[in-house]
Amino acid sequence: MPLNPADDAFAEALSRALPEGRLRRAEPRYLEEPRGRWQGISGWVALPRTVEEVSAIVRACNDARVGLLPYGGGTGLVGGQIAPEGPAPLILSLERMSAIRAIYPEENVLVAEAGAVLADVQAAALEANRLFPLSLASEGTARIGGLLSTNAGGVNVLRYGNAREQVLGLEAVLPDGTVWHGLKRLRKDNTGYDLRGLLLGAEGTLGVITAAALKLSPVPAATGTALLAVQSPAAALSLLALAREQLGEMVSAFELIGRMGFDFLAEALPEVRQPFAETPAWCVLVELGLAQGMDPEAALAALFTAGMEAGLVNDGLLAQSEAQAQQFWEIRERIPEANRAIGAIASHDVSLPLSALPEFIETGLARLAQVGDFRVNCFGHLGDGNLHYNVFPPKGRKKQEYLDVRADVQRCVHDLVNEMGGSVSAEHGIGRLKVPDLERYSDPAKLAAMRSIKAALDPAGIMNPGAVIRG
Amino acid sequence: MPLNPADDAFAEALSRALPEGRLRRAEPRYLEEPRGRWQGISGWVALPRTVEEVSAIVRACNDARVGLLPYGGGTGLVGGQIAPEGPAPLILSLERMSAIRAIYPEENVLVAEAGAVLADVQAAALEANRLFPLSLASEGTARIGGLLSTNAGGVNVLRYGNAREQVLGLEAVLPDGTVWHGLKRLRKDNTGYDLRGLLLGAEGTLGVITAAALKLSPVPAATGTALLAVQSPAAALSLLALAREQLGEMVSAFELIGRMGFDFLAEALPEVRQPFAETPAWCVLVELGLAQGMDPEAALAALFTAGMEAGLVNDGLLAQSEAQAQQFWEIRERIPEANRAIGAIASHDVSLPLSALPEFIETGLARLAQVGDFRVNCFGHLGDGNLHYNVFPPKGRKKQEYLDVRADVQRCVHDLVNEMGGSVSAEHGIGRLKVPDLERYSDPAKLAAMRSIKAALDPAGIMNPGAVIRG
Repeated sequence: MPLNPADDAFAEALSRALPEGRLRRAEPRYLEEPRGRWQGISGWVALPRTVEEVSAIVRACNDARVGLLPYGGGTGLVGGQIAPEGPAPLILSLERMSAIRAIYPEENVLVAEAGAVLADVQAAALEANRLFPLSLASEGTARIGGLLSTNAGGVNVLRYGNAREQVLGLEAVLPDGTVWHGLKRLRKDNTGYDLRGLLLGAEGTLGVITAAALKLSPVPAATGTALLAVQSPAAALSLLALAREQLGEMVSAFELIGRMGFDFLAEALPEVRQPFAETPAWCVLVELGLAQGMDPEAALAALFTAGMEAGLVNDGLLAQSEAQAQQFWEIRERIPEANRAIGAIASHDVSLPLSALPEFIETGLARLAQVGDFRVNCFGHLGDGNLHYNVFPPKGRKKQEYLDVRADVQRCVHDLVNEMGGSVSAEHGIGRLKVPDLERYSDPAKLAAMRSIKAALDPAGIMNPGAVIRG
Repeated sequence: MPLNPADDAFAEALSRALPEGRLRRAEPRYLEEPRGRWQGISGWVALPRTVEEVSAIVRACNDARVGLLPYGGGTGLVGGQIAPEGPAPLILSLERMSAIRAIYPEENVLVAEAGAVLADVQAAALEANRLFPLSLASEGTARIGGLLSTNAGGVNVLRYGNAREQVLGLEAVLPDGTVWHGLKRLRKDNTGYDLRGLLLGAEGTLGVITAAALKLSPVPAATGTALLAVQSPAAALSLLALAREQLGEMVSAFELIGRMGFDFLAEALPEVRQPFAETPAWCVLVELGLAQGMDPEAALAALFTAGMEAGLVNDGLLAQSEAQAQQFWEIRERIPEANRAIGAIASHDVSLPLSALPEFIETGLARLAQVGDFRVNCFGHLGDGNLHYNVFPPKGRKKQEYLDVRADVQRCVHDLVNEMGGSVSAEHGIGRLKVPDLERYSDPAKLAAMRSIKAALDPAGIMNPGAVIRG
């Protein structure tokens, strides 16, 4: 049975059931997404202040069979927050529920509402001398509810895990409007199914997260940063294993950069200082977050020496100051900007089993060569097996000339990822963009189970209709 | 609609559809449980060798509406593996699927079948110079499938998390007999709902886990062990925060022992050496697992000194040898034996928010004093907020005299745990023993969602009938 639109009559009736000022026509910002790929259908936005108001809104939508689109910071890259076609859903923005409800430094726990901006949560944790480790490019805009609903990744996953691992408890409104009061602050709780883990990463299709009890960590006493040139991706992996044998969890980040990354920076952003006299074929950016009394320079030097002795490392730069560490990170962080300047034919957010990465990188180049003449900039979170594998035209050509091969390129890369046991969405989720990929590559038993769960918890299909699971 | 029994006719028909020797009448060992609380109803046991055979068995049960009881090592403490009343389910033992299918040291991944014994998985990891951190008393008998299905805890949760956190991917047979080939070895995979997390901890009520891709960790380069006497549980918590500020994740274990624990050892097991000249009111057993180049004695001494200066620690013993470290652990590990010798009226496996522990311990004593005259031995995994809170008769009296207050004692403790935001099953699960507790204390919205999920994935109700969710 099709959904009904959130039309004026519905909005006005709902308006009367809520305190004043909770509904208005959606401004353009709710209808745009960061890459300009889609335009949302115009309609109404609800801006509740309490979980009870969220409950009333969800219940009204369920009763009237009106779709509901949970909205956080609007920074998602797969269209999970944009409905480009009707019937128009009601947009539910959590932006007015942005409180840090409580912080428990001795427990390493912070309770935040879904509308809290990530940077504000990080700052509140730091004020209590604690670390909230989730960190990514959009942290000044992205909100906790969206980050958790998409199981966001970022730069600290190697050490601290994905967003799902940062959550002890949830408060959420289920599709029938009932409130799940699950804000437990417990490290161990084996009383039934993991509803928490199920809502995390469900992209708003199984309910609306309204608050979360988040895990904090101690702030590392000292950090150390190095760029180490390695022979190959395989050598980079062996170096990672060596680093973890020496330092365990204190390896906070381990990012891969290839020669193409340095070349693109030189081509598009010549103001970025090239750190090596001779650009290496591959290098890794290593960041350590150390315990008290440990010397970052000594730890990095020990890793460098052991890497040299094992024949894995052939050059290296250890940051001598915070400024130099930031310079190293700038190289990593401005590669996406260089990529945009050059213009990718297709970008891929993929993950693979760690030991399959070298073969994937090599075979990918060979397969793509059969499709056409391309440049590949392959970089990313090596420690998580998560590569940004982006395909560009040869020098002097423009991506616009390659629109007709874009689908072939994506299919070539995603097919290989799938053959090698990888994932075609490592950290961005499915949203609306990757629904066909999910249907193509997902295990059929898993997909059937997902559909059963969706139908059981949201029989009217009101929650984020069209995202993840096709209605 | 009630289930049908796994009677002789069903077993013979299923037998003919499987290779020879896969079905037999269940020997007594499948019908007993560790605490002798229940006796399983007699019937048939299936012993498949492959996931395809498991699939055929599940499909046959689903078609015939016959209950299925997944069986691992049989060590569960809440009756999840025992059906005391009919209609008799088919017992499905995974013991013949016990292979370590593969090990990937560079990925820190090991793939084990559900029937693999935990100690064998630990040994296989160590042989590759890696650590599989899940560790608990029954590790010589418990099997991976059962450990994961119950989201087992143990002594390393503080550092490495519960069983759920040890799993990257699963192979499982869903209640309709389809096989989910989800043995991914990925650290990041955002392609749909977390079916993995849902099956983990579902106690066999949503499917049968047949294999898992497990996370390994580097083996710490050195370990250090100390017993530190503290003023109070609150001081113990502050010391834990201090330890984590100094050493981060390298704090592997942080166990609380009270004076009653030492007194019980003296009373029941006088051969256990008492480490302190004067028994402290409270002490913590701290274990560190350190990075290369770190000195355990120096790290423990720094913690001890900082704890003294902060007024948290008033005495301490740093293990000078592996033998002495084992002596310290013996104190912690033999407390349950002393408890059994003395005889508890009621035992509780509870967890609380860390900062609520001191108040819980104090208020619990006060409330119990209103019920009767008891001794309480409270000890456990302080770092996880997980206490074993066990209630005993006064000296000279026997637990048998207190059978009529047992339910009152449990209710008193569990009510308080619930009021304070805790869990009445921290690590053992629900099984059949704690179904009434789940129904009493669970959030109604969560319980309703669990029932919906169960009905959606297992509409015939064949999977471990009577466990977790009442049919």
